[in-house]
Amino acid sequence: MAETLVVALGGNALQRSGLPADAQNQLRTVRETAARLVEIMGLAPRMAVAHGNGPQVGRLALQNEAGAGLTPPMPFDVLGAMSQGMIGYHIQQALGDAMGKAGLERGAAALVTQVVVSPDDPAFSNPTKPIGPFYDREAAEALRRGKGFSFREDAGRGWRRVVASPMPLEIVEIGQVKALLGAGFVPVTVGGGGIPVVREADGTLRGVEAVIDKDLAAWRLAEALEADTLLILTEVEQAYLRYGTPQQKALRSVTPEELEGFMREGHFAPGSMGPKAEAALRFTKGRPGRRAVITRLDLAPEGLDGSRGTQVTA
Amino acid sequence: MAETLVVALGGNALQRSGLPADAQNQLRTVRETAARLVEIMGLAPRMAVAHGNGPQVGRLALQNEAGAGLTPPMPFDVLGAMSQGMIGYHIQQALGDAMGKAGLERGAAALVTQVVVSPDDPAFSNPTKPIGPFYDREAAEALRRGKGFSFREDAGRGWRRVVASPMPLEIVEIGQVKALLGAGFVPVTVGGGGIPVVREADGTLRGVEAVIDKDLAAWRLAEALEADTLLILTEVEQAYLRYGTPQQKALRSVTPEELEGFMREGHFAPGSMGPKAEAALRFTKGRPGRRAVITRLDLAPEGLDGSRGTQVTA
Repeated sequence: MAETLVVALGGNALQRSGLPADAQNQLRTVRETAARLVEIMGLAPRMAVAHGNGPQVGRLALQNEAGAGLTPPMPFDVLGAMSQGMIGYHIQQALGDAMGKAGLERGAAALVTQVVVSPDDPAFSNPTKPIGPFYDREAAEALRRGKGFSFREDAGRGWRRVVASPMPLEIVEIGQVKALLGAGFVPVTVGGGGIPVVREADGTLRGVEAVIDKDLAAWRLAEALEADTLLILTEVEQAYLRYGTPQQKALRSVTPEELEGFMREGHFAPGSMGPKAEAALRFTKGRPGRRAVITRLDLAPEGLDGSRGTQVTA
Repeated sequence: MAETLVVALGGNALQRSGLPADAQNQLRTVRETAARLVEIMGLAPRMAVAHGNGPQVGRLALQNEAGAGLTPPMPFDVLGAMSQGMIGYHIQQALGDAMGKAGLERGAAALVTQVVVSPDDPAFSNPTKPIGPFYDREAAEALRRGKGFSFREDAGRGWRRVVASPMPLEIVEIGQVKALLGAGFVPVTVGGGGIPVVREADGTLRGVEAVIDKDLAAWRLAEALEADTLLILTEVEQAYLRYGTPQQKALRSVTPEELEGFMREGHFAPGSMGPKAEAALRFTKGRPGRRAVITRLDLAPEGLDGSRGTQVTA
């Protein structure tokens, strides 16, 4: 039983690879995801949902580039906000419908959400998160000079813009999330890791070109809500040691300290299992009674009852 | 004093005409609007904000068309959701900052919001709302055949897609809006009139290609919140009889019955003052104690204290 549960949805919960990325397919996938979430609602009286936006925001960037001669492209914080609207709408509709069918009166609430990062975060001087389309060297160089964007060569496929992936420090709308949760709704929040903003000296906010990791944003959300369980849903049944080698070994039940040791040994790939392990570690280390679970979307009930997935507890 | 106030923001509250429609200009205009709204918060302990999205969603449609060879264009309900994210983000940030500077602890809450319409609404057999880019006759004909879109010739400037503008019947997330309002936040909701959905026989929702008028959605919001005052902010100081003629006459204080008579006489242009007058009429007719105000954005305080604008009360 989890009194308060934060669920982090990965890309496969929003969009099936191999199908055209149109609205119909996205909504169909989200409806399947919603059915899984409703299955576990009986185990979690209070649930909040965080989700990624990588492929979606990449497509928005493509459309913005393609239409640049017609209307000004939007910066990355605004694209993130747009993706929260788009994905939040589908999750909200699908969860509401699935709850209705199950006789649950809760309803979902997709909230536009800003997340504060530090302008001094070292990620800003070492941007690593690839976003948007591939460019040839000349086009990338022109954008570097014209707009100050950073680029990296991507495995022979061309040049790709990279932005910083700073640590989430504070969820601006956490009070709103708590109000919705307290009133019995399922907040859908920190979409795509949240819209990244920095706090100016006078206290006002300013959007920045960055992408916050959605698993770390989900950790920050779980902290702020004093959740009991952080459930990270992804494409694999659990985390593995020596993943993809003949010596691959499933991680079933680990302490934060064991997990930290495995992280240091480099078992978890950056941008993949890495941030999930980090979110799980940060949530559980030194906090007995808390639990982080990493498992496959369709195994959410088994993950929550402890019978499947990687279970991290102090 | 308005105990509960619903404010409807028109296009000029979000974007100054004549300036490039980039993110910087939009945010600057929204910050000016937020400063006006904070001025009237002292007069309204509970405030909810509705807003339009016409120009913004038109630009999203342009970008989607331009990128159609790269990634699937989204249908109109999804574009509406994206515009709620984009505009909601800017209003939420600007309002939050302005409230913070004024020492108010309330905070804004931009909520993705669906609004139910009837599949039998007569608007669906007579679509009137122009959206997106202009096409030549051949391109329009091809889209009509290929996708079933409706088109109208637009004053010699080319062919433009038209969608239905059905009546808003029910705000799906009204419980969420009330929870936020009750907790002291300023909900930003029914953006662009709300994401239009129909309710299927099994109770589930389905997005439809339509645009709900934002003033009528604001009326529906004001009804649902049992607001005292509906404040419609636009580009003119008040409604006029015989607008734009030498006999033009400002409407200062009218009863719903008088307003209804003027509407029948055709004083208010469709798609412009027409829906504002209709929203004001529907909100006040037969409901003494309620008030609708139509005035210019920068006159919001005077509109609310009754000294400027068109004041509609039974």
